[in-house]
Amino acid sequence: MRIALIGYGGVGKAFIELIVDKSSKLKEEGIDFEVVYIMNSKGGIYNPKGIDCAELLAASKVCKNTFEDINENKKITPDFMLQRKDVDLIVELTSTNKETGEPALTYILKSLENKIHVVTGNKGPIIHGYKKLDKIAKENGVYLGIGCTCGGALPSVNGGVIEMAGSQIYSIEGVLNGTTNYILKEMEDTGCTYDIALKKAKDFGIAEANPSFDVEGWDTAFKLLILTNVIMKEEKKLSDINIEGITGLKPEDIKIALEEGKRYKLIGRTTREGKELKMVVKLEKVGKEHSFYNVDGKNKAVRYISDTLGELTLIGGASGTTAAAASILRDIIYICKVSGE
Amino acid sequence: MRIALIGYGGVGKAFIELIVDKSSKLKEEGIDFEVVYIMNSKGGIYNPKGIDCAELLAASKVCKNTFEDINENKKITPDFMLQRKDVDLIVELTSTNKETGEPALTYILKSLENKIHVVTGNKGPIIHGYKKLDKIAKENGVYLGIGCTCGGALPSVNGGVIEMAGSQIYSIEGVLNGTTNYILKEMEDTGCTYDIALKKAKDFGIAEANPSFDVEGWDTAFKLLILTNVIMKEEKKLSDINIEGITGLKPEDIKIALEEGKRYKLIGRTTREGKELKMVVKLEKVGKEHSFYNVDGKNKAVRYISDTLGELTLIGGASGTTAAAASILRDIIYICKVSGE
Repeated sequence: MRIALIGYGGVGKAFIELIVDKSSKLKEEGIDFEVVYIMNSKGGIYNPKGIDCAELLAASKVCKNTFEDINENKKITPDFMLQRKDVDLIVELTSTNKETGEPALTYILKSLENKIHVVTGNKGPIIHGYKKLDKIAKENGVYLGIGCTCGGALPSVNGGVIEMAGSQIYSIEGVLNGTTNYILKEMEDTGCTYDIALKKAKDFGIAEANPSFDVEGWDTAFKLLILTNVIMKEEKKLSDINIEGITGLKPEDIKIALEEGKRYKLIGRTTREGKELKMVVKLEKVGKEHSFYNVDGKNKAVRYISDTLGELTLIGGASGTTAAAASILRDIIYICKVSGE
Repeated sequence: MRIALIGYGGVGKAFIELIVDKSSKLKEEGIDFEVVYIMNSKGGIYNPKGIDCAELLAASKVCKNTFEDINENKKITPDFMLQRKDVDLIVELTSTNKETGEPALTYILKSLENKIHVVTGNKGPIIHGYKKLDKIAKENGVYLGIGCTCGGALPSVNGGVIEMAGSQIYSIEGVLNGTTNYILKEMEDTGCTYDIALKKAKDFGIAEANPSFDVEGWDTAFKLLILTNVIMKEEKKLSDINIEGITGLKPEDIKIALEEGKRYKLIGRTTREGKELKMVVKLEKVGKEHSFYNVDGKNKAVRYISDTLGELTLIGGASGTTAAAASILRDIIYICKVSGE
């Protein structure tokens, strides 16, 4: 299988490292692929016989800017790749454009139209165009892997699509955002204020300089929206979700919860109420009998309740670029197996 | 997709009910199948145009023995079906033969050799012949679905094979047996002895008349063995597992555990220690910080620890014949999707 990588940030680099680490083992299992394009916003590198990823990484150790140095060919762009069509799968890891999903949405759409499988870790195009992309993929007999968009290593999408297949899903609930989970744990463990916990999260690189996307509940809402639309086959919008973040939480609230034997979690939840779907993101207190009680900073969780397969809770999803890259690899392996390529 | 059902006990009947309930919904999603054989040890029914499952069930409501009545054709056997080869998939649900896996092992083997997919809920043939069956399936380009053999609705096999794909699994741990889980919870909740809890489990139909397979840890060991061999690609045997059951547990032990804030669980665990695998089934005390703490009578759980995808815990697996049948259906849907049939 010939792969093009679009986007060479943290997860993109971790993906190349993972391929170098895992390729011989995967080859033994009949999973064989080579990377022929690596592109970022400035251009790219291309080797129709397969890029030597180990060499690229070795060079990177000597000079941090190696990729930029090698990456002098401004003609190597997604459009160039889509004209040649000499790949079987693209890994799309450009930055998320929350407003329009572009340019990733167009890259993904054109790839699928050209019968090229796609695996993406980018929420933007999935929020803005999943239904269309899914339709185009099916019409062209190719696959669209989106596992990385909802919790990375936590197989939340597969959990609903593959593991609950054949059942009707009554509800989706999840602790889907690592940053807020870290902040809540910090407030619990130390009794500190939200501001102090946020500062620590920023210091450790867990929270972004502008953390509003996480702490105001938007990241959780994006993920809940993707899970709901993909697993329940809905066409909901962000505006259908009642979203609250964690910024108003006081140390006193945490103290009272702890005295009750409970912990605060930022939970995204979609439930069926008659013919309607109710979607909310809000802080909830959960007791030790709840399967989310132990979902701490490092992990995320999702729970499905169904008619015939009962409940399924998945807890996991190690953070970091390696885990995110590993979730991209998981989707690629699935596509290799189901497409027989 | 044309299906033959071998074995018409509780799960077999629930499977036919599920098909009647779900078939129109599944058809909308492009999953279309018909049951052309239903067989048990006494013979079977066969309709090359598809058995009217709703009619069969409706008749069953009038007369409990309907299947036996209809089922007068002693020539309709798995051998007859394998001569005609007019099905795409067999659902194998005969009783488990723990010693040899037969006759299921032979049915499955011959089906795979004849390029017929197999989904089974039967541990016997998987314990005794998985490696060979897997090889024959791959050689013939067909699939062997075994999800139901390890916790039914809990997607423990897929959790390891699909959701941890591309990672190296360091350990497998699970609360894999419902009967012992029920008994432990009963002892915890009421302070009763093991014998009293066992009697109650028998009264409710949760424990079998001869409960030794469950309470002495064998069921957990069988499931651990399947998970280990399938997911870690090993060829371990039951004799490689150090197995202890729950029969020696005293109310005093439970009382002490509860005072420590802990609960007893019967845990099956495979861990890598250097180049060796260590496999044990034994009672362990888990605290509220452990993801198995809330896995109570109704549910089961499994946890994988890996190099690149971190930890993944799956909790679920509603008990009963419907849930088991739904796990068979999940495997069939997967095969429909990946085989494009």
